[in-house]
This record gives sequence, C-alpha cells and structure tokens, in this order.
Amino acid sequence: MSETSTDAALRERAARVIPGGMYGHLNAAIFGEGYPQFFVRGEGCRQWDADGREYVDLMCSWGPIILGHRHPAVEAAAAAQQAAGDCLNGPGPIMVELAELLVDMIPSADWAMFSKNGTDATTQALMVARAATGRTKVLVAHGAYHGADPWCTPSLAGTTPSERADLIEYTYNDLASAEAAAASADGDVAAIIATPFKHDSFEDQELADPAFARGLRALCDRIGAALVIDDVRAGWRIDLRGTWEPLGVRPDLTAWSKAMANGYAIAAVTGVDALRGPAQMLYSTGSFWFSATAMAAAKATLETLREIDGPALMERAGTRLREGLAAQAAAHGFQINQTGPVQIPWLSFAGDSTLEMATHWSVACLAEGVYLHPWHNWFLSAAHTDADIDRALQGTDAAFAKLRARFG
Amino acid sequence: MSETSTDAALRERAARVIPGGMYGHLNAAIFGEGYPQFFVRGEGCRQWDADGREYVDLMCSWGPIILGHRHPAVEAAAAAQQAAGDCLNGPGPIMVELAELLVDMIPSADWAMFSKNGTDATTQALMVARAATGRTKVLVAHGAYHGADPWCTPSLAGTTPSERADLIEYTYNDLASAEAAAASADGDVAAIIATPFKHDSFEDQELADPAFARGLRALCDRIGAALVIDDVRAGWRIDLRGTWEPLGVRPDLTAWSKAMANGYAIAAVTGVDALRGPAQMLYSTGSFWFSATAMAAAKATLETLREIDGPALMERAGTRLREGLAAQAAAHGFQINQTGPVQIPWLSFAGDSTLEMATHWSVACLAEGVYLHPWHNWFLSAAHTDADIDRALQGTDAAFAKLRARFG
Repeated sequence: MSETSTDAALRERAARVIPGGMYGHLNAAIFGEGYPQFFVRGEGCRQWDADGREYVDLMCSWGPIILGHRHPAVEAAAAAQQAAGDCLNGPGPIMVELAELLVDMIPSADWAMFSKNGTDATTQALMVARAATGRTKVLVAHGAYHGADPWCTPSLAGTTPSERADLIEYTYNDLASAEAAAASADGDVAAIIATPFKHDSFEDQELADPAFARGLRALCDRIGAALVIDDVRAGWRIDLRGTWEPLGVRPDLTAWSKAMANGYAIAAVTGVDALRGPAQMLYSTGSFWFSATAMAAAKATLETLREIDGPALMERAGTRLREGLAAQAAAHGFQINQTGPVQIPWLSFAGDSTLEMATHWSVACLAEGVYLHPWHNWFLSAAHTDADIDRALQGTDAAFAKLRARFG
Repeated sequence: MSETSTDAALRERAARVIPGGMYGHLNAAIFGEGYPQFFVRGEGCRQWDADGREYVDLMCSWGPIILGHRHPAVEAAAAAQQAAGDCLNGPGPIMVELAELLVDMIPSADWAMFSKNGTDATTQALMVARAATGRTKVLVAHGAYHGADPWCTPSLAGTTPSERADLIEYTYNDLASAEAAAASADGDVAAIIATPFKHDSFEDQELADPAFARGLRALCDRIGAALVIDDVRAGWRIDLRGTWEPLGVRPDLTAWSKAMANGYAIAAVTGVDALRGPAQMLYSTGSFWFSATAMAAAKATLETLREIDGPALMERAGTRLREGLAAQAAAHGFQINQTGPVQIPWLSFAGDSTLEMATHWSVACLAEGVYLHPWHNWFLSAAHTDADIDRALQGTDAAFAKLRARFG
C-alpha cells in the first residue's frame, strides 16, 4: 500500500476507532504486507479494493460467495423479500420452504434450525447432542477450526479453562486417537465433531480417509454419541447432499453456513429424526435468526446450485486452476503441494515452513490482480469461467517468475 | 387460528421440518394460543400475518424495528451498499464510518467491534474483560437475559455445568448482593454485567436505582473489574448515548444490537480506551461480521435517530400509550402495573401471577388488531404516531371490555 492510498487513509482512521485497526479473519495485518484492507465492490468472481484495483478473486470472501457477487436470482429473491418484510414478529413462509428444501437436498436432514453465524451452528449442534445424550464431553480434532466462541476460538485470549473443560482432542484421520479419546471420557461423550476434510490454517489440507470417516460413524454408534459434521466451510461446494455423502457416511447433525446464501448472513443445523426431540428442548435463538431476506437468498442460492450443478462447475474451474498451477510451478522449477478438494484448494511450497515463499508469491499475485491467501485455503465459485481461471493463471505465472527472481 | 388458515397450514408443514414446529423467542406456541406464527409484511409500525391480518405492532419484532419497517433512508442506504458489495474480502469504508459514528455518539465508546447477534456482543464483551484482567469470573444478575449461548441461555437443556462455572449471581438493584458476590470470588472478578434496567420476562420491569448503578461502577473501580452494560435490548430507545448516561454512570464496555440497524443483522461492542489493547488480543470473528450492507443500514438508522430525536418521539408515543392504558384500566375496574421506560413498556394485572389475565387480554388485543405480548416487554418505534397509538388504544379498550366480561 502506498502511504497516500485510500486504503492507507482508511487504516489510519480505523486505527483510532477499531481495536488494532481491524480484527478477526479479515484483518489484513495477519496475512501479509501489501494486502489491501478495505474493499468496495464485487461482481461475479471479481472484487475491487478501496483504491479501485480489480482482482480475480480466489477467496470468495472466505467462502460465502459461491455463485459470484450480485447473482441475479439471489439478489432478486432477496430484494423481493426485503421489500415485503425481513425482520418481523414471526418468521415468514420462506422459513418453512427453506427447511423443506434442506430436508429434500440433504439425506441426513430430517429437520433444520437456522441462525446467523457458523459458530452459532456448531455451538447449537453440540447443544442438541448434549440435550440428546445428557452427556458433557465432545471430541474435537486437534487444530480444527469450529468457530470463534470461547469454546472454539483458536486464541485463548479472553477465554477461561472451564469454557474448554468439556473438550477432548483427537487427531484428524487417526481413528485410534478418537477411540482413545472416547475411552478416556468414561462413557461421557455427547458428540464427535469433525470437519469433512482437514482444512486447518498454515498446513496442507488432508482429505478424510474413508476408513476414518466410517470408523467415526461406527464409534459414535457404539458409544451412543452424535456424529457432528462441521460443513460450515466446505458445505455446498463439493456435494450438495453434504460433503461426506460421497463417502457413504452420514452424520447425525451437520452445521452449515458460509456459502448457503451467497453472502447473506445465515447458518443452519440439520439433523436426523432421532434428534428432533432433543433439538426442541433447547432455548437457542437470536434477534435476527428468523429474518426472511437471508432465507430467501439461501433458497435462491441452493436452488440455483442444484439447477446449474454448482459443485461440478467449481470442480471444473478448480481442476483447471490446479493443473495450470502445477504446470507453472514445474516450468519455474518450484516444488509445490496442492491439497484439498479442487473447489477449496490450497498451494504450499515444499520446504517453506516459515511460509516466506507463500507470502511473497501471494503478494506478487495480488500485484498481478489475483487475490488468494498465503496460509488459508482458497475458494472457487460457480462464477469462475475458464476465461477467469486463465486470467488468474496469467497472474500466478508472473508471480512465479518474480518468485524465481528472488528465490530461484 | 382457524384450522383452515394459511398460518395453520404453514405450521403443519413446519412441524415436519423444524423441531417443535418453531423454536426460540419467536415460537408462538410459548406465548399463547391465538397468536399467529408466520408474518409476511411490515410497513411503518404495522405488520401483517400470513393470513393478511393487519396489526398495530407494539413489539417491533422484539426490538429491532425502531424507525418503522421499510424506512426510506435505511432501505436506500442498504440497497446502495448491497448493489456495490456486501460480503467482500475485507470490510468496506462504511465499517470505519460506523465505528466513528458510535465513538462520536457514545461517551463511553473509544472504539467499536461489530458482529451479528446480541449474544455475540455480550460474549465478546466478557472476552475483552477477561483478556484485560486475566481473571475468570463474571457477576450476572439472577434471571437476567444476556443471550442464548450455553453460558447465558435461560434453559439449561444442552448446556454443561462447566459452561456456567465462571458466573456468580447477584440480585439486580441490590448493591450489597453484588458486593457479596464479588467478595466470594476472592479477587477473581473480570466483569460485572448488567442490563440498564431489569427487563426479565414474566415480571414487572424495574428501572435501575441510580445508587445501585453508581455503586456497581464504584465496585468495579475498586476491584479492577470491567463494568459491562448489556444494552442489546434497550439500546437507542432511551438515550442515544447509552441507557445509563442519564444516570451519569458510564460502563467500560457496552453490548449493542437489536435496534441498531432497524432490522438488519448487526451487533457491536463499544469500549473505553483502556480496553483497546485487550480487545485487540481476541480472536473473535464471523463470516458475515464485516458485511457492509447491515453497516450501511446501521449508519442510516443511527443518523436518522439523532436527526429526528428518536428517543423523544418514542417517549411521546409511549407516554400516550401508558396514559391511555391507565385510563382504560381504571375505567374498566382493573388494577394494572405499567413498568419500564415508556419506550419499552410492559403491563401486568395486579395479582395475575399465573398471567391468565395478561394472556386473555393480549389475545383479545390481537383480535382487535393490536400486537403485544403477555409476558415479555414491548417496544415502541419512532414510527408510532399519535394516530397509531390511538388506534392501538381503541383495540386495547375493546380487549379490556372483553376481559371484564370474563373476569370482571
């Protein structure tokens, strides 16, 4: 950023009225110098920062944008609902329609409850599991991100030991570790929660070993615990039926959010029939959880994804990106790892444990009009055409060349 | 509800795909037979249920609607921001503008952080206090509502003892009880949290005793704890500077939400300069916390409230309502209690401990086209004109007459 940029001026103002100038996952300071902090516009798979620079966007606002910005069907549905009423004394008929749609789309869903944030959904899913079992402990994979409430935020600042006292860690893709964790709880396991693949920050992603997934299912069945899939980050990009459906493993509860309404704020928990009664026992609510506009946007988003086979489009775009990056890295003499599903990809450089190369390359991509992330997985959308991917690859190629000049 | 109504048909469908047919504070089943569950339209201070019945609305969607539905300045600001971009790879300039506005409006605010739900804000405020003090315990008034996360939801279903292990209860308006609670924590008090007045459900409201408010402030100063005001429910209706400002008591942290954006989903924590550093230590975030549309709506809402002196308008409407209800009750021979600020009123019948009279009267009001609540406080908006209040009073008078026929 130049010191005279609009972004710099906004940062200066922000530093006076926002702690640290920004916080959370969108705090540009935590992912590298050179990243713009403020954005002003989105259209399809392009975004513009406050200084008017255009990017081919490979982050999709960290997941929520799945059909591209300003998708006409979504915007029309949301605007029509907003004009009638959004936050009323009761939910609108759209809430029933959306719940019916989820139950129709998701084989493990017999019911749905809605909220606003991914954290709302993961927290609510654990509450349902605890209400169902009368037990307290939850098995969580070491290093997994399930939200930013005190029980799950990656930083311990501001949290207390009691708030995490009911968690027991296991190792992702290591069934024996989950079995051992369960055994250590002496019958007091309410749930095992897992992301559908390992997408921890700063690390190569790992797909779920199908034997691990089946093993977790069997373990839950054996000990009478609920299997909770946190599909907040991955949901709707891999398989509209749920990310573990292709593995043939069905959860008891699933937490959804992010891409569900193409950027509108909504989250959901879906569950199996046996957990309907326990779900009903909770008092879990929020002032805006029943608001109709985001539900109308969600319905339009999910119907559109089904209609156009969104996951297949994202798979095509992601495959093109992955193959292009592989060829470029080889041509420039870099050893890279590309991990995760192609729709939710990440690229690391071999031996780059400090992420120095990833950071330099990402910032070089930025300068070439390609927005991606040095240590968090990326996201594709159904709006990424072959031409968009090729435009992105043009930028990444130039960035590899710059990287070679420095590290080659 | 007639069995053939649209509402009844929607309930039947909802019962299949939503646990219990509905949940949370908008579950009509918990506040009485005869209440419609589904709503389809709002305009100013009127709402329409799914069967097309119009109500003068005295609940304002349980608080969020403060300028009336479809307020032109708010809708225009939100639509313009939505057309440019809502959920992007970073916040928009509007986030800085909104934080600046809060710092300008609220004497105890040197900074602001935004989120989505009231529960996000109360939870985040406690995290800031804990990060600042390195302590664990929080003093909470018995029966107070601070949200629906496991640490604060009124129902214990789905929660564990550990999740509430760091709370110590005191009695609202009883300074000695707060002093005793603090003493019992042996120096480990991070914060005292209080609503600006007692607005617990099922009970007459109680304004804060100024000596109690000043005493909490002094206690916090003495023990080095943060004073947190939960202004989620009351905020922006009594005093735009914060609900305790007229008492001359300034909190260290305030949680805001509900009415902040006239129905758009947003929440905030504001705090004093000394807590800026601790706030910066947290990892507290959400996928939609930085979305620009709700921030644009919030800025337009707060600027409009300031411009028109919203609290004064609501005070006028509330006073007219209170005086009218008092006269009607006297004329019909009922002893009633009207409690809380007139902008956030509630009415109970003397000796009606089972709420039988309140329930019958509320349902009678409904039938007369007036929407209010039997056991939760009501909310007025700046859109309630004298004529609207008079229209509401026409309905309440008929309802008192019906009640007299039954109980008189």
